[in-house]
Amino acid sequence: MTSTPTPTTIPPKDLYQLAERALVASGASPLQAAATARALVAADTQGLASHGTSRVQMYAAHLRHGRVDGKAVPALVAQRPAAVLVDAADGFAFPACELGVDEAIARARHAGIAIAAITNSHHFGAAAYHLEAVAAAGMVGLAMGNSPAAMPFAGGKRPIFGTNPIAACFPRQNAAPLMIDLSLSEVARGKIMVAAQQGKPIPAGWALDKDGRPTTDAQAALQGSMLPAGGNKGAMLALIVELMVTSLTGASFGAEADSFFVDAGNRPRLGQAFIAIDPGALAGTATYHARLEALLEAMLADEGVRLPGARRQALAAEAEAQGIPVAAATLEQLRRIAAG
Amino acid sequence: MTSTPTPTTIPPKDLYQLAERALVASGASPLQAAATARALVAADTQGLASHGTSRVQMYAAHLRHGRVDGKAVPALVAQRPAAVLVDAADGFAFPACELGVDEAIARARHAGIAIAAITNSHHFGAAAYHLEAVAAAGMVGLAMGNSPAAMPFAGGKRPIFGTNPIAACFPRQNAAPLMIDLSLSEVARGKIMVAAQQGKPIPAGWALDKDGRPTTDAQAALQGSMLPAGGNKGAMLALIVELMVTSLTGASFGAEADSFFVDAGNRPRLGQAFIAIDPGALAGTATYHARLEALLEAMLADEGVRLPGARRQALAAEAEAQGIPVAAATLEQLRRIAAG
Repeated sequence: MTSTPTPTTIPPKDLYQLAERALVASGASPLQAAATARALVAADTQGLASHGTSRVQMYAAHLRHGRVDGKAVPALVAQRPAAVLVDAADGFAFPACELGVDEAIARARHAGIAIAAITNSHHFGAAAYHLEAVAAAGMVGLAMGNSPAAMPFAGGKRPIFGTNPIAACFPRQNAAPLMIDLSLSEVARGKIMVAAQQGKPIPAGWALDKDGRPTTDAQAALQGSMLPAGGNKGAMLALIVELMVTSLTGASFGAEADSFFVDAGNRPRLGQAFIAIDPGALAGTATYHARLEALLEAMLADEGVRLPGARRQALAAEAEAQGIPVAAATLEQLRRIAAG
Repeated sequence: MTSTPTPTTIPPKDLYQLAERALVASGASPLQAAATARALVAADTQGLASHGTSRVQMYAAHLRHGRVDGKAVPALVAQRPAAVLVDAADGFAFPACELGVDEAIARARHAGIAIAAITNSHHFGAAAYHLEAVAAAGMVGLAMGNSPAAMPFAGGKRPIFGTNPIAACFPRQNAAPLMIDLSLSEVARGKIMVAAQQGKPIPAGWALDKDGRPTTDAQAALQGSMLPAGGNKGAMLALIVELMVTSLTGASFGAEADSFFVDAGNRPRLGQAFIAIDPGALAGTATYHARLEALLEAMLADEGVRLPGARRQALAAEAEAQGIPVAAATLEQLRRIAAG
């Protein structure tokens, strides 16, 4: 049987079991495998295949090459009433982020706000995923993380920051939470890869070549670096994210972590941070919901405006009902890895 | 005597007294005038004339027209161990922000993180100014605020968000703190005004005309709206800022506040938020400083990179020593207003 580009539809539960078995077969403990498989399947349900179970192959390679410790147990290593530092202990990001987010929610309930910062961590997938629990607890959340270096700072020629995503959640009363999720590069690397495959040029402002010169050659861009979104402004925000998740946590810089796309690199030891805020601590939940709904209504009165996250939520609802469309090649990979 | 474009140099203390007297003569209480004059003079020392004492004329007009209550006393109206809501009570932003920031610092010292949110507020000037106290306390800080609507959301045609600035501070051991400060529009409105005055076109991507169509005509842009930095990404961030400072505080949306540049509009009742984080609560201050300095060193190894905020700090040091260069017209205005 050869793989085909046609997606196969699979119930979320089945995809989860397959991903979990593949991770365990590659050396992950049940704790590490369960949290990771949950996150990857959630991404697949939302149509984010690049952060979904297609990543299991990469994660399995990292386990085999010691880039991830499959037996790691995340632990609280520092705490204050509204702040915790979680050591992911070179395991996958997901169990450490779950622990941190749960702590942040519980502490914000009392303190009004709380931060969970994660160190010695790995690829944390779609940043907004981690905020689903925050929104479910009725809280506003912020998430951020660094990633292997891909972008220069303003004025620079060499990659120093990752695309350093930022996400936020705002829970709603009678609707799915508003979820905002963005990376700080002008475009996703995938768009440059597509242009390179098609032999097409890319617009100015997307990337630099390996010598730090602006380029519209997609191949040259893949050897060089991505440009930050909005020029200097994206670079400034990437710097804020980088410092939040490294100086406060002790984690590695994006420039210290080997690419996720090589099997035999270092332990990335990246950082993440999650902030939960209880609206009840400030103007109160009634005001919170009234203001939020009024703003969304005003935004939607402008034809052409769509709420962020709406497409992901529609796809997730569809996937729950009808199964997740997953590339046949991905399913084959998962089965092969799960078979050991 | 007519005003000339030549700047006059004036000692910071003298400029402060002049600004304070002008605000008191316009109806501000000593409390309101002192905090406001401090902030405006600080902006002038850093070369940020557009957020400096040149604003006194506008602030005085707002006092006279009741857009600001000059006798307002900001008050804590909600609190939790790590969160406070400050009601600026329709006064100037600065005394309310000072109160909020002081509370956030004190609470973060115990809790590890704290948030101060401000409601019923006014123009808060340069966002990073409010973080100087946070940095002086050895803490990492984030600041954000909304402003009268000037930009559409992604896909929209009508202004709904202000340029909604974000700032961050990272204190350093043997150097001035790293200060990052950006607004979320592609360019400052001032650049479009300069192009309009010179009859020059503006680049595509800066602005829309009044019907929501992309324009390179600077005059048409001034009648229309600014575009967010980095396209959809700046719009997403502006949405996060808008919700943080309104849904959590009860403050008005940027689209509900009349322009600061008209004398007789409504009370803007805008919102701000400040977050202080104690590095000692997470990986500790030694790790914090080591990681911060290592990143800055790596950034500066790339020729062409300058640290954000460095120019402002150099100008401030110069101003302390040699006086602040202020436009003669601004000084004349201040003297005229102070004379009542």
